[in-house]
Amino acid sequence: MTKFSALAHTYGTPLYLYDFDSITHKFSALKDVFKARKSLICFAVKSNSNLSVLKHMAHLGAGCDCVSIGEVKRALLAGIPKYKIIFSGVGKRDDEIEEALRNDILMLNLESEEEMKRVEIIAQKLGVVARISIRVNPNIDPKTHPYISTGLHENKFGVDIESAKRMYIHAKNSASLDPVGIHFHIGSQITDVNPFKEAADVLANLVRNLKALKIDIKFFDVGGGIGIQYKEEETIALYDYAQSIFAALGGLDVTLVCEPGRYLVGDCGYFLTKVLYEKYNGFKRFVIVDGAMNDLIRPSLYQAYHAIEVEGKEGTEKSLCDVVGPVCESGDFLAKNIELPALEHDDILVVKSAGAYGFTMSSNYNTRMRVAEVALENGEDRLIRRRETFEDVIALEKEYL
Amino acid sequence: MTKFSALAHTYGTPLYLYDFDSITHKFSALKDVFKARKSLICFAVKSNSNLSVLKHMAHLGAGCDCVSIGEVKRALLAGIPKYKIIFSGVGKRDDEIEEALRNDILMLNLESEEEMKRVEIIAQKLGVVARISIRVNPNIDPKTHPYISTGLHENKFGVDIESAKRMYIHAKNSASLDPVGIHFHIGSQITDVNPFKEAADVLANLVRNLKALKIDIKFFDVGGGIGIQYKEEETIALYDYAQSIFAALGGLDVTLVCEPGRYLVGDCGYFLTKVLYEKYNGFKRFVIVDGAMNDLIRPSLYQAYHAIEVEGKEGTEKSLCDVVGPVCESGDFLAKNIELPALEHDDILVVKSAGAYGFTMSSNYNTRMRVAEVALENGEDRLIRRRETFEDVIALEKEYL
Ligand SMILES: Cc1ncc(COP(=O)(O)O)c(C=O)c1O
Ligand SMILES: Cc1ncc(COP(=O)(O)O)c(C=O)c1O
Repeated sequence: MTKFSALAHTYGTPLYLYDFDSITHKFSALKDVFKARKSLICFAVKSNSNLSVLKHMAHLGAGCDCVSIGEVKRALLAGIPKYKIIFSGVGKRDDEIEEALRNDILMLNLESEEEMKRVEIIAQKLGVVARISIRVNPNIDPKTHPYISTGLHENKFGVDIESAKRMYIHAKNSASLDPVGIHFHIGSQITDVNPFKEAADVLANLVRNLKALKIDIKFFDVGGGIGIQYKEEETIALYDYAQSIFAALGGLDVTLVCEPGRYLVGDCGYFLTKVLYEKYNGFKRFVIVDGAMNDLIRPSLYQAYHAIEVEGKEGTEKSLCDVVGPVCESGDFLAKNIELPALEHDDILVVKSAGAYGFTMSSNYNTRMRVAEVALENGEDRLIRRRETFEDVIALEKEYL
Repeated sequence: MTKFSALAHTYGTPLYLYDFDSITHKFSALKDVFKARKSLICFAVKSNSNLSVLKHMAHLGAGCDCVSIGEVKRALLAGIPKYKIIFSGVGKRDDEIEEALRNDILMLNLESEEEMKRVEIIAQKLGVVARISIRVNPNIDPKTHPYISTGLHENKFGVDIESAKRMYIHAKNSASLDPVGIHFHIGSQITDVNPFKEAADVLANLVRNLKALKIDIKFFDVGGGIGIQYKEEETIALYDYAQSIFAALGGLDVTLVCEPGRYLVGDCGYFLTKVLYEKYNGFKRFVIVDGAMNDLIRPSLYQAYHAIEVEGKEGTEKSLCDVVGPVCESGDFLAKNIELPALEHDDILVVKSAGAYGFTMSSNYNTRMRVAEVALENGEDRLIRRRETFEDVIALEKEYL
């Protein structure tokens, strides 16, 4: 049996697999291009929040970028030091702000003046000083899918430069706020270094202006967004990426913070699914598999492309098909118009680059149990989240029946 | 305090509410237009699978249309009689087929010859006769969102008429199959009666042809798809809907089966969410709320419109805004460009028509806990699913840390 088929056999399908050794390589490569400067790589937990993945990040020395108190708690539980945890996000609830402050994490990344006021009130109530950073919206178009582009004024994220200045001055004068950081995040799956360079230039200038006001920014956070290769995209050369940020920073004495999600885990993950039937409707070929949009929603939600491979059928003639799941929606597909060899019941398909925004976005739609997650490390495999059972899925309802 | 605010206060936000009395009215209205014939209304569990909702359906006399063994188990657990349960879906696994047959449900609705072969093999192995129905794809365009249109040949659903005939003949001659039903489902949120009429005509003719072959169809299943009013859509007059099906059936002695999901629960549900901040980016107004795309994905996934209301601010001036959640994606919105009055921290927004494809599609994206569900009945409210805790969400991972 081939490697993936054996794993499918051991753990069942559908299944998420993460190659921890590859994650290590990706992390080291990024750390390496940053080595001329103080840097902190904060893994974006939203992309893959499995506790064992986070623990692996902790071993590598990574911090975490979190967007909910749930993600902060995951990071802490997995052993990420509190001084490497950032809490970002456009809509923090009062109880989340309070808990983050009590946990004394590195900083809260703020996205509006209104939010800053809440943080100030809560910090004052708790008698603590809240370390904050401000997400500045540099109004740069990263040329990506509109849903994952976040650096333009017309969206909900961050504040413009003038508002940011006002906020920094307010924070400096507040007894409950300590403005230590500046942040941008312009989008996800970016394949061109220029938008990063432009944004870094704009923000580095702002940092210089703030210095003149005696506001001393210590953390320069360039967000996430480094793209990976799903199909034939050119990706960013990490060296160029780092150099363009360094060039923007010049002599500024700051710690460079970076929040990659997809880059660190995206192409280290695989989604395995089993063929149920092949079916022709008219001339159209459908490969019906046991994985569905509830397991991996990216194709449906973002029209995302994931390469799909079959082991052990090399040399067999291929033909065009759609790979679709059992969910009763036309939007339930894993791939459209791809070439695959003739397939049989129980053949295993390997959906590639499924390590980011895969399991974390999965649901129980159609009362489908969420799948198991498995880690591959040093030639071994181990379960890191068990498959849900029917009892798990109804647990919170059953008592009210 | 107003009614919705009081409920938000009691149960917290975000929150799903379902008005069981309204569900009763909707059910009765549909049952009523069918009264000239034998009929069975099988609620489409995928639209709202809460066990207490299903129990309410059981009280009303409804059956269930299920698309996974998980949904079949929910229906059974909630007290739906096995002889009112249909198992549909384009990709049934072997273990699902086996369990459905063991449970002796009304029928399995088949979507391909390949699937029929699996059912035959499994029925034979178990020594039972599988009652089946065949989903016929009448190639009719229901003029709805491409993701929820399912009656055209270019999609994965059902089989064409010629294949259906072949399948029926095969089933009749098989010792393990009993072809008792015929089925179509042409899409969801349909607001015009004509596609239903056309499909019913095509299938009623097929039933007559099958009779000539001594294949006696007992259940004529017209699927789901009846639209509701989200915005200003005209909806189908139920009377016309029933009459057009009756006209197609003529003197055929069949039980009419109907599988509404959205119609029965869609506008009986509300999603309550709390205002966190108001924010302006340039001239654009954003209302940031505690509910997000992980709770209600329809706006993001289908560009669906849900009306949003605020209690207790009648007469206040309104202005255009986007209502957005805390999830870090531009695609995270509940509404775009709608008119709302000025809002403050803690105001409650009522997102309407959220009873179908709301909670069932929700996820833990961004480690957000799935929300609570509450039933309203006879002037009383009660919890029917409790809010998730952090411990619930990490339970299946924690042991592997
Ligand atoms: C603030 C922030 N940081 C980091 C990320 C991670 O982005 P990516 O996975 O593209 O690196 C995101 C993604 O949405 C984000 O919103
Ligand atoms: C086979 C089948 N029946 C019924 C339904 C319910 O549809 P609706 O909620 O539009 O009534 C669906 C929805 O996808 C379906 O696929």
